[in-house]
Amino acid sequence: MNERKDVVIIGAGPAGIQAAIHAVRKKCDVLLLGRIERSALFSAHVENYACVAGVKTGEELLLAGLDQVKNFGAHLMEDDVLKVHQDDEGFGLELESGVTVFTRSLIFANGTARKKLKVPGEKEFFGKGVSYCVDCDANFFRNATVAVIGNASAAIDGALTLTGYAGKVYLINRELMASKELIAKLEESSVENISGTWVTEIAGQDAVQTIVLENGEQLALDGVFVELGAKGAMELALELGIQLDLDTMSHIDTNKKTETNVPGVYAAGDITGHPYQMAKAVGEGCIAGMEAANFAKKQKRKDKS
Amino acid sequence: MNERKDVVIIGAGPAGIQAAIHAVRKKCDVLLLGRIERSALFSAHVENYACVAGVKTGEELLLAGLDQVKNFGAHLMEDDVLKVHQDDEGFGLELESGVTVFTRSLIFANGTARKKLKVPGEKEFFGKGVSYCVDCDANFFRNATVAVIGNASAAIDGALTLTGYAGKVYLINRELMASKELIAKLEESSVENISGTWVTEIAGQDAVQTIVLENGEQLALDGVFVELGAKGAMELALELGIQLDLDTMSHIDTNKKTETNVPGVYAAGDITGHPYQMAKAVGEGCIAGMEAANFAKKQKRKDKS
Ligand SMILES: Cc1cc2nc3c(=O)[nH]c(=O)nc-3n(C[C@H](O)[C@H](O)[C@H](O)COP(=O)(O)OP(=O)(O)OC[C@H]3O[C@@H](n4cnc5c(N)ncnc54)[C@H](O)[C@@H]3O)c2cc1C
Ligand SMILES: Cc1cc2nc3c(=O)[nH]c(=O)nc-3n(C[C@H](O)[C@H](O)[C@H](O)COP(=O)(O)OP(=O)(O)OC[C@H]3O[C@@H](n4cnc5c(N)ncnc54)[C@H](O)[C@@H]3O)c2cc1C
Repeated sequence: MNERKDVVIIGAGPAGIQAAIHAVRKKCDVLLLGRIERSALFSAHVENYACVAGVKTGEELLLAGLDQVKNFGAHLMEDDVLKVHQDDEGFGLELESGVTVFTRSLIFANGTARKKLKVPGEKEFFGKGVSYCVDCDANFFRNATVAVIGNASAAIDGALTLTGYAGKVYLINRELMASKELIAKLEESSVENISGTWVTEIAGQDAVQTIVLENGEQLALDGVFVELGAKGAMELALELGIQLDLDTMSHIDTNKKTETNVPGVYAAGDITGHPYQMAKAVGEGCIAGMEAANFAKKQKRKDKS
Repeated sequence: MNERKDVVIIGAGPAGIQAAIHAVRKKCDVLLLGRIERSALFSAHVENYACVAGVKTGEELLLAGLDQVKNFGAHLMEDDVLKVHQDDEGFGLELESGVTVFTRSLIFANGTARKKLKVPGEKEFFGKGVSYCVDCDANFFRNATVAVIGNASAAIDGALTLTGYAGKVYLINRELMASKELIAKLEESSVENISGTWVTEIAGQDAVQTIVLENGEQLALDGVFVELGAKGAMELALELGIQLDLDTMSHIDTNKKTETNVPGVYAAGDITGHPYQMAKAVGEGCIAGMEAANFAKKQKRKDKS
């Protein structure tokens, strides 16, 4: 597992699947990370993807895609990336399962950045206590009381990170869905885990003061981190110093070759911005897969010489 | 037919099909022009288009695409565009059938520009008598003897144009495949039509001097125009003053929104450059369709106010 891959792709939606297909066909060692059930497409009904007749479910399409990826010889891991760093020969990714993988080139295909909670107060208090990015905003909550909302790796990892800043950290979730390793770390930490419930409202005057839980209980606090799904794309990108789009700071900035500002790092799909469409995702995935494979091959030749 | 369309798409390959789907879903009046049999995909066997399992023939995929386009309510015409011009409210397109269509916005999805003859001498004499663009190079052949090679509208139209420049114009073709109207024009012209044969070699010293036909016959001449398929994308683009890529001058230059330098004109698919892949074509088609539809709607609102 510690052998360096040529191309690692974060995200098993249409962008990641197409990238894997095109990278592996260039005779590269390719790993696709992610879960199709977490793709935005999974519960969609699609009839506007060119040359695919009738209505297909997202699940059908994604399963067909995974078959292609496997048949062409790429590796697959249903695992979430928690941390990314750059090293001399490329990049290292820490996975939820505790494994670290190394790669020469990296493709972000991890979907839209901000998944919303959709409760009263969320919009109103965005930037006034409500945040979608632990790594961006943790520092504003030194010694404060905060809650992280979410069931999966992003929420647990976010809560753990916040224990290094905030005075008190709650983790609110319906049911934790993460690896044994990550849950064990949570249990050893100072995070107060409130399972089996959900947030129904965020309230306050000028800034967040309380959250209301399903049973009517209120928690007094200063900050709410919404961390639904896997670790947010923006946060992973920030760890590598990747340039986000300057207008909204919610997408990764890429050029027509799907290159980011960091050599060897590419991005494709919803994470690069509108339109949020499968066709656009595969178009960028195709280019990213080929470009990343070329980059890795060049790198390998350099390493040998 | 003379009512102005919102979006006209030149080319019924994957890029044009995806563009039509996304434009028509924005409630626009959309016309798709072209023939699926002339798509580069038609005789391909595809297994690398994400989320489509197994091996599909290009024909199957394109037929499914045409069904989608029809079901969503776009119009289709199996017709070639011969000329394009800009007018006050958008663009006018002269078709091979003699019809002219008008549109507010226009998408070039007409595939790769230069189709090669693949005979000895072609590469060697490129730029030394061999040309792929009548509109670009006709002027270099004033009073000279030239031949146009091709069976379809591009070749006939090219030969007719050249009669305004060259002293003598041959048209070499296996069998003319074009509209009655265009063939009638050809018959009235000074072009010498040599049907039922093909070129096997282009020869000369420093520049083209002869071509050899299948029966061994040689024709002495100064220039050979290779015009296979429909009217070359580059030539149509030049008529509107569209910027080509500066490196190779063989692709239309677009930004990430698939915009060209001419407002209201977009391009998608092989015509915008590598990689020549279906996934890349649909990705750009999706964006072009949406952008062109938005442009047309804005234009309409302006016209009303
Ligand atoms: C209800 C609905 C209906 C839709 N209908 C259509 C439609 O009809 N047509 C259409 O074209 N589009 C439709 N879309 C949009 C389409 O689903 C998206 O544009 C498309 O899925 C984007 O693909 P993607 O690969 O960029 O991201 P996604 O498909 O969202 O995939 C993201 C992947 O990243 C993985 N991931 C995220 N974070 C991490 C991490 N830290 N570590 C590891 N993996 C991670 C996830 O597990 C997932 O596999 C619809 C979307 C929704 C929500
Ligand atoms: C043998 C072969 C195998 C291939 N295999 C694969 C594969 O396995 N996977 C893959 O992804 N890609 C493959 N490709 C590439 C793929 O076919 C192209 O990338 C794709 O077709 C490009 O789509 P497009 O819509 O840009 O252009 P095209 O599909 O070439 O369509 C061009 C359209 O423009 C029309 N047109 C041109 N000029 C005019 C005019 N003047 N007026 C009106 N209409 C006009 C034509 O009639 C045609 O409908 C293959 C190509 C070939 C040749």
